[in-house]
Amino acid sequence: MTAELNITHDPARRSWIDTACVPGADFPLQNLPFGVFSTADQSTARIGVAIGDQVLDLGSAAASGLLPSGGAEAARAECLNPLMAAGPEVWSALRARLSELLGADSNAARNTRDLVRRHLVRMKDVTMHLPARVGGYTDFYASIHHATNVGALFRPDQPLLPNYKWVPIGYHGRTSTLVPSGTPVRRPKGQVKPPASSAPAYGPTRSLDYELELAAYIGVGNPSGSTLSVADARRSLFGVSLLNDWSARDVQAWEYQPLGPFLAKNFATSLSAWVVTFDALAPFRTPAYRRPAEDPTPLPHLLDPADQAEGGLEVTLEVGLVTPAMRRDGLSAHRLSSGSFSSMYWTFAQMAAHHASNGCELRPGDVLGSGTVSGPDRSSQGCLLELTRRGAEPVLLPNGESRAFLEDGDEIILRGHAERPGFVRIGLGECRGTVLPALP
Amino acid sequence: MTAELNITHDPARRSWIDTACVPGADFPLQNLPFGVFSTADQSTARIGVAIGDQVLDLGSAAASGLLPSGGAEAARAECLNPLMAAGPEVWSALRARLSELLGADSNAARNTRDLVRRHLVRMKDVTMHLPARVGGYTDFYASIHHATNVGALFRPDQPLLPNYKWVPIGYHGRTSTLVPSGTPVRRPKGQVKPPASSAPAYGPTRSLDYELELAAYIGVGNPSGSTLSVADARRSLFGVSLLNDWSARDVQAWEYQPLGPFLAKNFATSLSAWVVTFDALAPFRTPAYRRPAEDPTPLPHLLDPADQAEGGLEVTLEVGLVTPAMRRDGLSAHRLSSGSFSSMYWTFAQMAAHHASNGCELRPGDVLGSGTVSGPDRSSQGCLLELTRRGAEPVLLPNGESRAFLEDGDEIILRGHAERPGFVRIGLGECRGTVLPALP
Repeated sequence: MTAELNITHDPARRSWIDTACVPGADFPLQNLPFGVFSTADQSTARIGVAIGDQVLDLGSAAASGLLPSGGAEAARAECLNPLMAAGPEVWSALRARLSELLGADSNAARNTRDLVRRHLVRMKDVTMHLPARVGGYTDFYASIHHATNVGALFRPDQPLLPNYKWVPIGYHGRTSTLVPSGTPVRRPKGQVKPPASSAPAYGPTRSLDYELELAAYIGVGNPSGSTLSVADARRSLFGVSLLNDWSARDVQAWEYQPLGPFLAKNFATSLSAWVVTFDALAPFRTPAYRRPAEDPTPLPHLLDPADQAEGGLEVTLEVGLVTPAMRRDGLSAHRLSSGSFSSMYWTFAQMAAHHASNGCELRPGDVLGSGTVSGPDRSSQGCLLELTRRGAEPVLLPNGESRAFLEDGDEIILRGHAERPGFVRIGLGECRGTVLPALP
Repeated sequence: MTAELNITHDPARRSWIDTACVPGADFPLQNLPFGVFSTADQSTARIGVAIGDQVLDLGSAAASGLLPSGGAEAARAECLNPLMAAGPEVWSALRARLSELLGADSNAARNTRDLVRRHLVRMKDVTMHLPARVGGYTDFYASIHHATNVGALFRPDQPLLPNYKWVPIGYHGRTSTLVPSGTPVRRPKGQVKPPASSAPAYGPTRSLDYELELAAYIGVGNPSGSTLSVADARRSLFGVSLLNDWSARDVQAWEYQPLGPFLAKNFATSLSAWVVTFDALAPFRTPAYRRPAEDPTPLPHLLDPADQAEGGLEVTLEVGLVTPAMRRDGLSAHRLSSGSFSSMYWTFAQMAAHHASNGCELRPGDVLGSGTVSGPDRSSQGCLLELTRRGAEPVLLPNGESRAFLEDGDEIILRGHAERPGFVRIGLGECRGTVLPALP
């Protein structure tokens, strides 16, 4: 592992905020993810950092002079875009200072603790917003397992197309319907043509699905007309969150040729509230996907030794489902699948380098969705399309219910975390969404 | 023709600005398109209206009290989005007032002429910017001639897919690389795999193409989760401009399956400067495409009698090419094609209604590209891919040159206008772009 580790990753350090020190907590001192929140008292959106069950208000902390100069200005914005644009040195300096202020071991923390405490808000008292103003959202297709499984359902004769191992396949998504975790998702209507029908019909989708993804936020980006090397692309990435790419599979099957998914996807895409920085993820870097010998080597502009060595992320992602009946009976979420992001065929740096390889401008706050994170076996398939073989083999739930696709009232909860011996586990929080019935 | 005509369309009226009265001028009193400009003296972007060879500065005109209350506020913005959001009543009132202020026949014009004159800037002294902050750009595929021609090149066995006559096919484009007319376009690099090669290679595209399109700007839009009837969609559309959807055909052929075009398109998309309102186009409305008897009737949510009666636009669009040799020799642009927007299979209102039919939020300033406007015969094919049969039959130019695809230094000029007996011709201006060589 060559990723640069520093005091912010030191597993021996802990916060003076007790709830950040509970084993298994998502937001220990080593995480320090960024988000945007408001409170009932103060409706202006502002930047916060999650620590245990608290949120440190970076805007007011900056106003009190607690933050280093570069980060302080960006910390006073209403969204993370200025911080994302500020670049790795600013991110590192801000993160180091936050670790110092919130760490139990430092003199700085002891001296400033009372001051810092004034800028803490309880997480249960905040409303979280989208972390950034997302100008561009691109969704990739970087799991070869997902691409193969889905391809087999739609094109049994040719599951994986010839370009897949050369091109990080992606397409543009819709930014106007990105919503923060917790926003209900209304079942969309759309055009569907069942194979047995001679004509399509317009009505509520009967194949509503989720897709478990990671989102990477662009930090610095590139000007229009210029490209990014994989190494530059790596430095340009700010952090990750969870992403649920809600999908209407029946609409998708009818509409997607020849120009790709459109209304099957753009009714809603959920993003989790907290952006975990790539800096915080440094201890959990892992080699990029080990291509079998028969697979081609990526073209030179998509190949970088450091990225091959540690462009993967040892992040475990899982999907939970709560049905209305489970909710009524007080049952906790049923885990539908669990997989590792390390199984992805392409790294985020490769996706970003590919995206910019034609001179396409990437801007601070732009989102790259990874595509559904599916592993090699059934327990790690990240959507119902795969888990149920397009609805043919419904998933059985412990309470006796079953699901081919999502029903009204179902809640999907994505979670993620990174852990590795010798380091403190960090979490991504959660990305929730409950299905509302279609409009009449 | 049921479109509502009023005094702003009266062909007997003329402006007191002489250059607006020249026959064939793009910007007579009946047009009054909106744009965003700045000048060397005043770098702040502001809204203007084109009249002859002049631009009326709406920001300063509003500050002088010349404009009606609803429009005056929106007219003082730095982009058209607030005006687009203000809705049809405000648009009509503003347009009526502008027609009054700039018309030679009214008392208002005689009384205010000196005052209005102070807010005029010569068109040659302004720099034009993108008319709106475009949050979402969607490109459709609404010409059945284009879809059939292109389909035949990529899928000889099935040129037109089964969904085409039911679904206004579209996909999301990239907003970060939308550029105003006049911005040079750098030849992109990309991954290409010639059929004879066993592996792809990364390098400058050898198949750079333009696509002649109209762009429609969303005015009012719809909240997330709600839909738009075709009638509502019509009222929600603000105006049109020219759009050049630059395309790298070799990249497109290799990347586009299964998720659609991506890097083949998102390196640059040019928009013309002036947005001609649907109100100004009212005299040029024409029936929607007459579907042959064997074609299906659109589903009810995409069908509206008024839209069928006059959802088409009798707008002539044409493409001109200037090569470096032609420029050197002082030759004017060679017309590559000319066609009518009335040949489109889907109307803009149908495209917008389809886009919102799953609850996808459309916002003021969003752009719907029509897709390449190609007519039934070769003289009206709106891109080189069609004109040259994917490069197999190069276009011969009058000076002895030929083009299979675009070469460095080539300039593409899109133009458009609407004319009909008994009405004053109005123009869309032009959308220009010159190809720069790829970066080394």
